Amino acid sequence: MPKRVSAPDYCLIARAMDVLGEQWSMLIVRDTFFGVRHFDDFQKSLGIARNVLATRLARLVDEGILSRRVSEQDRRKVEYRLTQKGRDLFPVIISLSQWGARHLRREGELPAFALVDREAGQPLGPVEVRSSDGRVLTPFDTQIVPASGTTEEIRAVIPPLRKAG
Amino acid sequence: MPKRVSAPDYCLIARAMDVLGEQWSMLIVRDTFFGVRHFDDFQKSLGIARNVLATRLARLVDEGILSRRVSEQDRRKVEYRLTQKGRDLFPVIISLSQWGARHLRREGELPAFALVDREAGQPLGPVEVRSSDGRVLTPFDTQIVPASGTTEEIRAVIPPLRKAG
Repeated sequence: MPKRVSAPDYCLIARAMDVLGEQWSMLIVRDTFFGVRHFDDFQKSLGIARNVLATRLARLVDEGILSRRVSEQDRRKVEYRLTQKGRDLFPVIISLSQWGARHLRREGELPAFALVDREAGQPLGPVEVRSSDGRVLTPFDTQIVPASGTTEEIRAVIPPLRKAG
Repeated sequence: MPKRVSAPDYCLIARAMDVLGEQWSMLIVRDTFFGVRHFDDFQKSLGIARNVLATRLARLVDEGILSRRVSEQDRRKVEYRLTQKGRDLFPVIISLSQWGARHLRREGELPAFALVDREAGQPLGPVEVRSSDGRVLTPFDTQIVPASGTTEEIRAVIPPLRKAG
């Protein structure tokens, strides 16, 4: 019997959630986009236990999402900054926050802050999925197809590939 | 002393992760985008314990992300489908999967499947953050500003607002 394939073996969303789905990790990333760099400022902003924060920061550094270095302004302090891999989470963070604004706001709740573009001072547009030539796509406009790395084992557990035959 | 504000009191990313950050929840949403509707198919696709799957599905229904109804084709079966709130997670799922493809692929690993647009049969474009007039924005092009619902308590824990003064 072939080895059972599970989602993280082929699914990049599964791997991404393994890194980012831990409680607080996405909020630490959010804070770094907002300019937070120091342990005490993360702790103050998030209000979490110091040992939990230390574990999450270490994981994000291990995963290459944050870099850790001694501050140039104050050699006693350590700075955490987004790497390129971390900065590439920008559309994830913004789409998640726009989804929250649309669907998780409480009755009558006003936004506490807004993210604007510096140049125009206007709120951002909605994050959208587009085709390679720029057309906005809905889920119904897209389709899953097998790619070069598909194996029989993976096909067997991916429902749309099963359907595609 | 005023009540301490914590991230979920004002941060919509915190609330979104409370719903979606649970292990498997985002993968269940992924599966529904791929067309999975029945309990046994989720179970087969994800390979998780039935009681965990049942708990996650119930939470996603409670949160209004999935709807649950008796199948019209087979009255013995229950169908889970994305609601509008669920479908609005499309940019989150796609940006997360593109980030994974860019940064979490193993050395030499080929993609197992691709999401293409039906019309052109081409891979999707990258999900991007844009201004309201359509310019592509990087994190450096954006800025946090206080909005109408900001209170002193919230200001006190949001670092960029603290900086903004």
